[in-house]
Amino acid sequence: MVNRQIVLAARPDGLPKDSDFRLVSANVPEPKNGEVLVRAMYLSIDPVMRTRMSDVKSYAPPVEVGGLMGGGGIATVIESKYPWLSPGDVVEAPMQWQEYAVLDGARPRRIDPLPEPITAALGVLGGTGLTAYFGLLDVCQPKAGETVVVSGAAGAVGTIACQIAKIKGCRVVGIAGSDEKVKYILDECGCDAAFNYKTTADYIAKLAELCPKGIDVYFDNTGGPIADAVFGLINVGARISICGQVSQYNKAKKEMGPRFLWELIFTRAKVQGFLTMDYAARFDKARAEMAGWLRSGQLKAREDIVEGFENIPKAFIGLLEGNNIGKRIVKV
Amino acid sequence: MVNRQIVLAARPDGLPKDSDFRLVSANVPEPKNGEVLVRAMYLSIDPVMRTRMSDVKSYAPPVEVGGLMGGGGIATVIESKYPWLSPGDVVEAPMQWQEYAVLDGARPRRIDPLPEPITAALGVLGGTGLTAYFGLLDVCQPKAGETVVVSGAAGAVGTIACQIAKIKGCRVVGIAGSDEKVKYILDECGCDAAFNYKTTADYIAKLAELCPKGIDVYFDNTGGPIADAVFGLINVGARISICGQVSQYNKAKKEMGPRFLWELIFTRAKVQGFLTMDYAARFDKARAEMAGWLRSGQLKAREDIVEGFENIPKAFIGLLEGNNIGKRIVKV
Repeated sequence: MVNRQIVLAARPDGLPKDSDFRLVSANVPEPKNGEVLVRAMYLSIDPVMRTRMSDVKSYAPPVEVGGLMGGGGIATVIESKYPWLSPGDVVEAPMQWQEYAVLDGARPRRIDPLPEPITAALGVLGGTGLTAYFGLLDVCQPKAGETVVVSGAAGAVGTIACQIAKIKGCRVVGIAGSDEKVKYILDECGCDAAFNYKTTADYIAKLAELCPKGIDVYFDNTGGPIADAVFGLINVGARISICGQVSQYNKAKKEMGPRFLWELIFTRAKVQGFLTMDYAARFDKARAEMAGWLRSGQLKAREDIVEGFENIPKAFIGLLEGNNIGKRIVKV
Repeated sequence: MVNRQIVLAARPDGLPKDSDFRLVSANVPEPKNGEVLVRAMYLSIDPVMRTRMSDVKSYAPPVEVGGLMGGGGIATVIESKYPWLSPGDVVEAPMQWQEYAVLDGARPRRIDPLPEPITAALGVLGGTGLTAYFGLLDVCQPKAGETVVVSGAAGAVGTIACQIAKIKGCRVVGIAGSDEKVKYILDECGCDAAFNYKTTADYIAKLAELCPKGIDVYFDNTGGPIADAVFGLINVGARISICGQVSQYNKAKKEMGPRFLWELIFTRAKVQGFLTMDYAARFDKARAEMAGWLRSGQLKAREDIVEGFENIPKAFIGLLEGNNIGKRIVKV
């Protein structure tokens, strides 16, 4: 059985290019006692993977050159030497970008019942949705009537964060990178206002116009000049959740930006980073709440599915360029 | 009765100079019903006042050109039309930089019993000590065995913050701007390690050497390149309290610095600004605890007293240049 894998061919200089990845074939090992063999159905494509392609500190060690790229996925159990999983089970698992994986049986999470569509288990009911849920609700504690700004608002996490803020009764202002995205978050994600940062010259003026009562909560997916503008408009007691910094991931050198710590003093504002995995003990409860919002129609999940394992590098590079709306997934 | 006052003569360009201040004489108004007339004994000189000399957002509106400068002080009640204060009472009050003030009787706080020295009511048992107390204990929640870094460590707030961190069982690393200051915080404030940033070329290397287990808590009085270095060495779960940004106060333009929000993500670190006045409901309890530490000898308060009302501008400019150790106070 041949296992196709995407490995890191070279550390990218700026935006990754096709040649930074290599499609290789490996043999699939036999599962040992306690292990399972799974076959990928869908693989998650996430911007933050870019950080592990460079030799910088990240949420996990850098991928070695020649090492396997990737993140989570949905898979089917093919063979099981782990008592609580059986062939045919559908699981969410740390697949990496490969067609097959042999995993410690404790790692995959059986998805039961299967959501409709099944890909929701990677998106709105998976890591993406949980990231929006805890990053917004736990880190920022938004209250009804407050103004919430979301950057990267048309992305996988951003679309969910906007909708959760709306469910909580906030005024939601989204920032995205195309007119199509702006239309989407206004029409489908409940944003009260939104703007295209690529066609806006003065972010501070635009935000001041769209946030007449200032900014109470900022859910930051991008960092960079958008975040700089937000820091100038935060209210007393503002909470800022640092979810991603996609504007920075392709920078070889640390970018310089205006210092803003002074703004935190007189506003008593809090800036906090988070990793979703820290909230694992509360995932089930969060998933149940999100599933309820999906059923009631308060929450919509947009997916952006690319077909074909071999198209992963292109799907990933495009994601870093912002050519997606919603959750990008590759169907294997 | 003539009231000498220090007013803002001109908005400073960079470090204030003598000519940015003017000594003027005003008449002392009669206290109306509910008011008290007080005479200054000691006036507090604080770096943060610099921010209100420029037309920037701060903890209070900018001082108008021609307007009264200043902050808190210790004063004696001369005449009272407020039932709960009597002539002879010693109070802590928002004096500003003047010899006499007529105040709403509810504003001064009677100091009773009088601490020894009485100036402790402005320093370790006043705004300065409370700032260190809440900024460290409330914002950062330091735990025994953690590594706490304090910048501006030989300053009024820094000397107290170092000692409180030590009382809590932390490893304390102080950063200060002269060899004399470094010696002081090592010998008298319980710092386990310290360095002079003015004679250190590589802050990151020095901090990495002095903080072999990384940095759990950072109490930031300075901002700037010192803070930049700290952000590169914070541990998972780090808490960073933004107390002051004295490296930035004299900058006419917002300084640029390396972006660090990414570091907050994988460390899940929190950066929070605070203003001491928000903790007013807990001041009495905090003062009582600090007074206990003073009595037991666990806490020492160094004061730096300048004589003469007319010397306020010089004392303030020197403070911004860092020529003090501990709390600077002018004796009127």
